[in-house]
Amino acid sequence: MTDNPTACLLIIGNEVLSGRTRDANLQFLATRLGELGIPLREVRVIPDVPETIIGTVNEVRARFTHVFTTGGIGPTHDDITSECIAQAFGVPWEVHEETRAIMAADYARRDPPVEFNEARLRMATLPRGAVPIRCAETTAPGFSMGNVHVMAGVPRIMRSMFEALAPGLERGRPILSHTVHADYVYEGQIAAGLTAIQQRHPALDLGSYPYYRGKGGGVALVAKGTEAAEVDAAAREMFALLAEYGTAREGEPAPEG
Amino acid sequence: MTDNPTACLLIIGNEVLSGRTRDANLQFLATRLGELGIPLREVRVIPDVPETIIGTVNEVRARFTHVFTTGGIGPTHDDITSECIAQAFGVPWEVHEETRAIMAADYARRDPPVEFNEARLRMATLPRGAVPIRCAETTAPGFSMGNVHVMAGVPRIMRSMFEALAPGLERGRPILSHTVHADYVYEGQIAAGLTAIQQRHPALDLGSYPYYRGKGGGVALVAKGTEAAEVDAAAREMFALLAEYGTAREGEPAPEG
Repeated sequence: MTDNPTACLLIIGNEVLSGRTRDANLQFLATRLGELGIPLREVRVIPDVPETIIGTVNEVRARFTHVFTTGGIGPTHDDITSECIAQAFGVPWEVHEETRAIMAADYARRDPPVEFNEARLRMATLPRGAVPIRCAETTAPGFSMGNVHVMAGVPRIMRSMFEALAPGLERGRPILSHTVHADYVYEGQIAAGLTAIQQRHPALDLGSYPYYRGKGGGVALVAKGTEAAEVDAAAREMFALLAEYGTAREGEPAPEG
Repeated sequence: MTDNPTACLLIIGNEVLSGRTRDANLQFLATRLGELGIPLREVRVIPDVPETIIGTVNEVRARFTHVFTTGGIGPTHDDITSECIAQAFGVPWEVHEETRAIMAADYARRDPPVEFNEARLRMATLPRGAVPIRCAETTAPGFSMGNVHVMAGVPRIMRSMFEALAPGLERGRPILSHTVHADYVYEGQIAAGLTAIQQRHPALDLGSYPYYRGKGGGVALVAKGTEAAEVDAAAREMFALLAEYGTAREGEPAPEG
């Protein structure tokens, strides 16, 4: 996995930090990025504070192949992501003429027509040099600026923007995953055996996840890596380890309830 | 809100970054910390990599009043949070005798008895000077080391540990919140008016959140702060703003579906 490009996600918005809104983008992006061979290495949730956004963007864009942001690109006073990206890159934040024309045509076509006021014009204002990310959900675009990809926070729009962006991303070898589990087997029993399997497969990432079902439960063991044969070999060893203590099964345990 | 203590949350674990597990702790902690007057200012999700954990802990414990961590305190090879905290503080990681005795008594009492093996002993091993966080869900403790509070990742156990910890935390003035909303009103209409309200109440944090209901939707406006009279005054102004464009209502919109 070490040769793959890497990703960092910045979730921008006070509403996630205050508990008002439960983030619904992290898991989607984590899963899709793994499929594309761009493993997600870090996530930060940060507030709508310019210095924090600018400083964080500049720190992480130097450390990861790709940076994705969600949130803060709407028309209101707390939507400051786009301006902050311009400041982080040291470029002007200016009306993007092609985007303005697309949005103007869209608003004129609505019934009743939508007023293209100053607030809405903010959504057509981009850092100089940004490449718009257009999607079917809205004419207000996301954008890529260098390796920073700026997307909406609304999950439906974010997903559409990500899929528009995905074909153009530098990608690596997909992260493959193989899971086994056993009810009534506990982490404390299999920990030493699992350590031994990890030591035999240092290129893989082995994880152990307890689960709970009423008064019972068990443990799920997951092998991840880019080499299918090695992932499956480790999974067979984990299956045999679980079978020493209970009834080993393929895959994730069924959802509770 | 500026005089309040601050909090940072570190979610430690490859399983959240890979998309296998959806975090279920952020929203709970964000909400409870707001109630305690310890607003959550940043969240990071980081992998089970020692240098990353150690470096991040040392960075954020210097910047925030409290740091909370979830995950990585079980018995398996990927549970490295506790060792990393010891390294971050430059203290030995050693068996905590009182905790060992409590866990030994618990394991002996089970039917059949649980073997207190080397893997399980890791859960009784703490940074020197750590104060255990004991809860009713398990005898394997969390712990506080200075301003860093280390909790389990399993939500049921994490919540129990947090509630055991909460009475002893330095806290501030609770963050109060007042929400109004209107169907069929859109952010682009009220953005300028909302900016004016924000400017009249610079001590408050005003947020605007669109919502969607099939082909319709609307906008929810939220005022947050520590002064009840000012929060309510801003909410009245936001209500009047929404009433210019639609039917304003108190509170959050009903959940979809």
